[in-house]
Amino acid sequence: MKHFTDTLQQRLANQLARPEYGPETVVIGGGTGLSTMLRGLKRYTHNLTAIVTVADNGGSSGMLREDLRMLPPGDIRNCILALAETEPLMNELIRYRFADGRLKGQNFGNLFLAALTSVTGNFYEAVCAFSQVLAITGRVLPVSLQDIQISARLADGTVIRGESSIGERVPDQSNEIREIRMEPDDAEPMEEAVQAIDDAHVIVLGPGSLYTSVIPNLLFPGIRNAILRSNAPCIYVCNVMTQPAETCGYDAWRHVEALLRHVGRSETAGFLDCCIVNSNGPDLSAPLLARYATEQSDPVGMAIQKLEQAGLEVVAAPMAVEDGDKIRHDSDLLARTVMAAAVECGRARREEPVPDGVLA
Amino acid sequence: MKHFTDTLQQRLANQLARPEYGPETVVIGGGTGLSTMLRGLKRYTHNLTAIVTVADNGGSSGMLREDLRMLPPGDIRNCILALAETEPLMNELIRYRFADGRLKGQNFGNLFLAALTSVTGNFYEAVCAFSQVLAITGRVLPVSLQDIQISARLADGTVIRGESSIGERVPDQSNEIREIRMEPDDAEPMEEAVQAIDDAHVIVLGPGSLYTSVIPNLLFPGIRNAILRSNAPCIYVCNVMTQPAETCGYDAWRHVEALLRHVGRSETAGFLDCCIVNSNGPDLSAPLLARYATEQSDPVGMAIQKLEQAGLEVVAAPMAVEDGDKIRHDSDLLARTVMAAAVECGRARREEPVPDGVLA
Repeated sequence: MKHFTDTLQQRLANQLARPEYGPETVVIGGGTGLSTMLRGLKRYTHNLTAIVTVADNGGSSGMLREDLRMLPPGDIRNCILALAETEPLMNELIRYRFADGRLKGQNFGNLFLAALTSVTGNFYEAVCAFSQVLAITGRVLPVSLQDIQISARLADGTVIRGESSIGERVPDQSNEIREIRMEPDDAEPMEEAVQAIDDAHVIVLGPGSLYTSVIPNLLFPGIRNAILRSNAPCIYVCNVMTQPAETCGYDAWRHVEALLRHVGRSETAGFLDCCIVNSNGPDLSAPLLARYATEQSDPVGMAIQKLEQAGLEVVAAPMAVEDGDKIRHDSDLLARTVMAAAVECGRARREEPVPDGVLA
Repeated sequence: MKHFTDTLQQRLANQLARPEYGPETVVIGGGTGLSTMLRGLKRYTHNLTAIVTVADNGGSSGMLREDLRMLPPGDIRNCILALAETEPLMNELIRYRFADGRLKGQNFGNLFLAALTSVTGNFYEAVCAFSQVLAITGRVLPVSLQDIQISARLADGTVIRGESSIGERVPDQSNEIREIRMEPDDAEPMEEAVQAIDDAHVIVLGPGSLYTSVIPNLLFPGIRNAILRSNAPCIYVCNVMTQPAETCGYDAWRHVEALLRHVGRSETAGFLDCCIVNSNGPDLSAPLLARYATEQSDPVGMAIQKLEQAGLEVVAAPMAVEDGDKIRHDSDLLARTVMAAAVECGRARREEPVPDGVLA
């Protein structure tokens, strides 16, 4: 197991001086976790591709999905915003949620993507145009342009259909999620997403909801196989806190187990190289942790021994911060840790010589 | 009466070469007519201010007005778009109207202004920010930031309340509109609008719906008085076609009479200097005119003698064009005619020496 060292810090400082030549980094996930990480990563590499789940069917995204038969824009919008250097007004505008009347609950950024989808005739074109309007660093790709739904099979055989229903189910540790499936199960990922994985120097999974943000991307055979055939180090960023409906009582190793199960692997070799875990969960303020605990959300145990026994490089760093009444990754600390882990794992894994100036 | 001459054409060509030094031109109105003219005028002067009615309470604007208690954005949006040099995609996006679900009928540009109004906390700030995003030539000002409604008193004493109800009433020539009132009748115009009129080298009223777009602006004592005290030539651009609910059977003179009535004047002197009338109405295609006629809409008679008897300079030009199944002003021909009229009337009216390079 590595701790965040001075040497790595120095290497990162070098990297920071030339982010335009930074490693081709592909991050895969969805939700708030992914956008937090992107906000940090763009300072270290401009060669960033976010591959984002399109399984969301709740909230403003769900309304638009239902009304306009478009793909859910929310996660994509957040990732685009995270990669943008917009003026505060534009930023606030894109995040704005209407409070009254027929528009109540609609997010303006989502409406922007919805209107662009109609005008360009294609969700991907809309995402590209929106990215251009906001002059983002890197790019954001929906994992697929197909209309997919996910369902969860629980321990007792019950099936819950729809991303939002899964994320909102009443926590029940005696009846855990066993499997996530996708309908249609042969949906095609975007070619650009597969190509980005093929071209990647680093692949990062998460952070984010394990079963509703990270795993849905891995259900596409095209995505799964691209990761499995890649020579780039593959890093899983484990969440800071467990999520009541999904990962109640999980330590980091159980998160990894779920990933392995969903890519059809019994061992990490050839799939995952590294797991990044947060080390300061228990040090967060007691009242905040107590409040989280009432919602069955606790700091994720690091499980370092189990992870190392499974052959994973483990990088532990104190990355959790308190943001009002929320606990989240600090985006810069997370990004530095990811880059440091990429340097280490890249060295261990790579057989070919390192391209000059990349992951030096 | 003037016809559009070669000398005027030449003067305009000179003007066209330096639109950044063009005359300070204030146009007052609302609706499609105003934006058609602005689209042309921006080529001749960059010193353009559009003062736009906020009486609209129908369609997407009406929905937003009701739901969000904001001012109606539709006319403002169209004027801003007319002054913008946007790429086709952005243009199409701002015009886009949602077709399905909870958003049905909402125009995306209006939603943009609505979200900006909430984020900036002020409709005027929102209009400025939107103008900046679209990099417009000139500026667009709501005539007032107060929430006003208009009502029409008909010949038989009936009162119709609300801009959209007035515009949609069943045409009835035996029961014409006599007076438009505003509630509250002492509403304050924007200071910037009054200042723009005070600074104007040319003031243009219309084209556009007489009772629901042009006159509502004149109901503000502040606007009316600024026009009356101005030394700048004041030009009225009469519509090409009569409007069933408002101006059935009206010739150009009757349009002017209505203006006079609403500024409390019995004669044009000191208020209006010039009336621009369209001369090719009867030459438009017979089937199209026949279709318009079934909706009680006919070419506006020029009434040149009556206008001249009232002391007005009359400029007649063939400006009407057919645009699919619509008849409208050609924006460039209209703009050239307005500029030519401004040159003529300015010479006749102005007592002070002309500033160098302005209205040469």
